[in-house]
Amino acid sequence: MLKIPDQQVVGHEAGVGKLGPFIDDSGRFYKPLESDKCGSEEVAFYESFSSNNEVPEHIRRFFPFFYGTKVMKASTGSEHPHIVLQDIASSSVNPSIMDIKIGARTWAPETFEAYVAKCLRKDRESTSIPLGFRVSGLRVYISDESGIYKPDRDAIRKSSPTDVKLLLRKFISSNPSAEMETDPDCSLASSVYGGPNGILAQLLELKAWFEDQTIYHFYACSILFMYEKGLALKGASSNAEVKLIDFAHVTEGQGIIDHNFLGGLCSLIKFISDILTKTTKLTVENGQIEQEES
Amino acid sequence: MLKIPDQQVVGHEAGVGKLGPFIDDSGRFYKPLESDKCGSEEVAFYESFSSNNEVPEHIRRFFPFFYGTKVMKASTGSEHPHIVLQDIASSSVNPSIMDIKIGARTWAPETFEAYVAKCLRKDRESTSIPLGFRVSGLRVYISDESGIYKPDRDAIRKSSPTDVKLLLRKFISSNPSAEMETDPDCSLASSVYGGPNGILAQLLELKAWFEDQTIYHFYACSILFMYEKGLALKGASSNAEVKLIDFAHVTEGQGIIDHNFLGGLCSLIKFISDILTKTTKLTVENGQIEQEES
Repeated sequence: MLKIPDQQVVGHEAGVGKLGPFIDDSGRFYKPLESDKCGSEEVAFYESFSSNNEVPEHIRRFFPFFYGTKVMKASTGSEHPHIVLQDIASSSVNPSIMDIKIGARTWAPETFEAYVAKCLRKDRESTSIPLGFRVSGLRVYISDESGIYKPDRDAIRKSSPTDVKLLLRKFISSNPSAEMETDPDCSLASSVYGGPNGILAQLLELKAWFEDQTIYHFYACSILFMYEKGLALKGASSNAEVKLIDFAHVTEGQGIIDHNFLGGLCSLIKFISDILTKTTKLTVENGQIEQEES
Repeated sequence: MLKIPDQQVVGHEAGVGKLGPFIDDSGRFYKPLESDKCGSEEVAFYESFSSNNEVPEHIRRFFPFFYGTKVMKASTGSEHPHIVLQDIASSSVNPSIMDIKIGARTWAPETFEAYVAKCLRKDRESTSIPLGFRVSGLRVYISDESGIYKPDRDAIRKSSPTDVKLLLRKFISSNPSAEMETDPDCSLASSVYGGPNGILAQLLELKAWFEDQTIYHFYACSILFMYEKGLALKGASSNAEVKLIDFAHVTEGQGIIDHNFLGGLCSLIKFISDILTKTTKLTVENGQIEQEES
């Protein structure tokens, strides 16, 4: 039983006459192959990655599991090849999801000029050049009553560095939407970004790999942040997860580390760890104030 | 008593009618101020850096000490303002020096278009884009008899990623020039790149700072590697030193880490540590072979 995923934060949505991804009940995600070179290159990456013994086991969990390709009836009605992947949101009820495209440069060195110019323009107009990454999509679950916070794509696309800092705080906040616009409470920072299984710890694990791996260069690839607010509020783990997605522009590393991805990743890590430091400090300060007053 | 430094590996050389730096006997280096904005921006950086309390003491040693500016008779014969700096090669007899421009991108985000285009072309034609750095100059002292190995600027400018890997090995090799061209022996790797005071250790210290500091972004800045072969051969420390130079394009960090510099630095670190790993392994293997044979 195929359906259109309602938790997608970026990319084309399946519709009448429009190609888009499907999910099924068994936890699989069907992504229509792009008809240009990108589609075949993404398949080539997944095939190479799945069979590459040099990729450490603890790093594989950051990538969706690859089941192969399948020609199937697309959302347009005609037969179309799809990449079959693990549906990384399948175990979540109300996930909060953020899609962050990593790297100041989204184009590989050996790309044709028109594509370089297009990417460079987008990189300069967005926060990619100043921050080393840009936010591509965001969905924050607030509550069953208040629904979700999901800024439109155009607003996200126009984010300044200051806006991006705010989005990274909104992502782990739970005060009602109006307040969140200006003063997100960061109430879930420690349970989502912090802790031994939190997002920061996962990013640091990825960073250690990127300091060393020279197999792949991940241009225009995204890091997804995901967590389940319902769990965090119950006092359980927030199921915070980091996943890499979108591999249509991966190239061979040729003995060189992916310094472009690594630089952006380190920049993102610095923002996340600053949020954690400030939140923890604030909690301690509030605690002290309360103690002094009591 | 001013003289023209003979250990310069990059930049303009003082001559009749040509502006260039001088050194004196007291260990000072006089760099003519560029007449455009670059000159005043480099002075502004040194003034800001010298007085900035946020820069940790252990990081200051990676920067030349700044003594101020001085109007003095230039190599052209006329009066010209100079930046007065520590002459970082003053205590060396026959230093080997390598100048490496760090960062895949040598232009700041807010630069005028013609300059962006010029830098981008150079970054793409050189190894800056693929490696995250490029070699700008090199001088390797071989011996009093064989003199120094100093490839010309044009050859260095045209280096491919493979050439750069070779230059990083030549820099710590001491076999005669002809052999060194194809098969550098890396005999000084452990005493120059390795050890607690070696170049790798210093680069890692810088890296830790760059993962955190958001004060400055160092565009088109160089890292100098320096060591004294004479000392290393005597069994003493090689006086290996890492210095940052050339700050005409430093901008304010505005709360963002310098992911462009950091990425390039990590790429360089990976090459240096690979050379060390291979050299150490080779030494161990040779040792084992000798043992087995004896």
